[in-house]
Amino acid sequence: MALGEFERIDRFFVPLSRGADGAFGLTDDAALLPEPPTGEAWVVTVDALVAGVHFLASDPPDLVARKALRVNLSDIAAMGARPYGYTLALALPKDLPDPAHWLEGFADGLRVDQALYGIHLLGGDSVSTPGPVTLSVTAFGTVPRGGELRRSGARSGDDLWVSGTIGDSALGLKLHTGTLAAVGSDAGFLVDRYRLPQPRTTLGPALTGLATAALDVSDGLVQDAGHMARRSGVSLVIEAAAIPLSAQVRRHVDSSAALLHDVLTGGDDYELLFAAPQSRRNQVVDAAASSGTTATRIGRAEVGEGVQVIDADGRVLDGLDSGGWDHF
Amino acid sequence: MALGEFERIDRFFVPLSRGADGAFGLTDDAALLPEPPTGEAWVVTVDALVAGVHFLASDPPDLVARKALRVNLSDIAAMGARPYGYTLALALPKDLPDPAHWLEGFADGLRVDQALYGIHLLGGDSVSTPGPVTLSVTAFGTVPRGGELRRSGARSGDDLWVSGTIGDSALGLKLHTGTLAAVGSDAGFLVDRYRLPQPRTTLGPALTGLATAALDVSDGLVQDAGHMARRSGVSLVIEAAAIPLSAQVRRHVDSSAALLHDVLTGGDDYELLFAAPQSRRNQVVDAAASSGTTATRIGRAEVGEGVQVIDADGRVLDGLDSGGWDHF
Repeated sequence: MALGEFERIDRFFVPLSRGADGAFGLTDDAALLPEPPTGEAWVVTVDALVAGVHFLASDPPDLVARKALRVNLSDIAAMGARPYGYTLALALPKDLPDPAHWLEGFADGLRVDQALYGIHLLGGDSVSTPGPVTLSVTAFGTVPRGGELRRSGARSGDDLWVSGTIGDSALGLKLHTGTLAAVGSDAGFLVDRYRLPQPRTTLGPALTGLATAALDVSDGLVQDAGHMARRSGVSLVIEAAAIPLSAQVRRHVDSSAALLHDVLTGGDDYELLFAAPQSRRNQVVDAAASSGTTATRIGRAEVGEGVQVIDADGRVLDGLDSGGWDHF
Repeated sequence: MALGEFERIDRFFVPLSRGADGAFGLTDDAALLPEPPTGEAWVVTVDALVAGVHFLASDPPDLVARKALRVNLSDIAAMGARPYGYTLALALPKDLPDPAHWLEGFADGLRVDQALYGIHLLGGDSVSTPGPVTLSVTAFGTVPRGGELRRSGARSGDDLWVSGTIGDSALGLKLHTGTLAAVGSDAGFLVDRYRLPQPRTTLGPALTGLATAALDVSDGLVQDAGHMARRSGVSLVIEAAAIPLSAQVRRHVDSSAALLHDVLTGGDDYELLFAAPQSRRNQVVDAAASSGTTATRIGRAEVGEGVQVIDADGRVLDGLDSGGWDHF
């Protein structure tokens, strides 16, 4: 049975706006943002996801919803901001077999992650499309004014750090699409890492006043390091052996060294890559530990430009300079 | 030639972010919103547009861009807020024949309206899609804290007003798609009204402290009046003969009375429908005049519920209760 726009909004989305004062239960033309905490500023970011491009059309709708939120929360975290809420634009195919069922799952996913991250739906638009499921989330957070983490602050001599582990998502996608065979029982963990990013929403704010530059790894470790190097006007040297790998990725790379390229350039990691002064090493490790993740020192910033990945003997690995996940 | 995501952003979108301090030239993971003027709050709204649903795939890209901005600016105006900026999520078909050409036109349209409305691009995401052109704009404005216009404030005895003229867009769409024959030389004006809304960005803020309730007419005059009636807990009585029509629409309705239904329920007017106390009539007229538009008194709020459209003899017009443009 077809659901009207208003019924759809009332049933699935209005409940998600409860708890956000200025959202007015989605009854008005726009929402009000409250005053941020004293001394803080609003941070805003937007990401769009398209079925068949950023997720698989067969992915369960609750995971699609959570991924859409989390890639945005990852951007918020990369600025050192705490998440507050989001607006949502959702285009659903006219010929979706059971839109109410899909929306139920989708709203469930939003609800779960709203509770997990303490955020609310502030406004939305729900339309139909002759194309694939397409959604765009604009996320809001707050950061101490002047304390936001930029990509441009890394200085020669800084350490380069990354949170969590790198490459899980790249190999998870390959396992999910059948272009890589599972080794042992690793598929579940790696596919989950692809389908459900773990944005570092606690670590990000803990790095304000500590990191000199930060971004989240979405395009690929090497390409995102390139962004930081270019914006900061430094060279970044990454020691391949230092890059933190999960046991599952380690097994794959051990059995096929060529997969290291996927790990370094595959993207969708949603870990934080950041620079910090050498004098802050203990504080960085502590901040990560108290944020429920790890931070691993993978290299350093030097005078120069670009990104070099070196092996244990200091030799530069080739073929990585233009790596990275370009969504086009 | 295919354009990469980063080249696309640098070439077409970064220039549109100039002048917005916290946008960081679109180089970072998120943008910062500045502090609003003293005593004001941020207002945020989102609208999505899909080719083949909200505009025609053959529409020129500069008009698509301007329409996307303007439907959002109309929501901002309906809250009584002044426009500040926007974020953009754009999904372009993989097989678009000449994406650089399309983007050039699209960015031109954004640039023209940015200058016209004094707004800037704050952030964006540009992705590809196997489907139609899909875009979503999240727009920001500022409104005196506590002075925002809601849908819920109309009181029995208030006048009901509408800005500009109603029905131009509904008949313009019919002319554009060939389901209505032109009368004289009216097609240009009416089609333009469909393709390029005129958001009442000056009138909206002028109504704060004056109107008791407001919204913009996007679903159709009767349906949007229904929203206000329901949220305000009043009945709204509209005199059909009082509804302001352009000379072009008047000619069509005179030659085919059935078109009045399209005028009343067609949608996409992007005029402001608002209620105000009878004591404020002169101020409303002045506010409209100094905002470069007109305000016409089309009815009144009464005790009760729902919307009634009455003819010159006070008879209720039938068949309008469920009217309105449901984008599904």
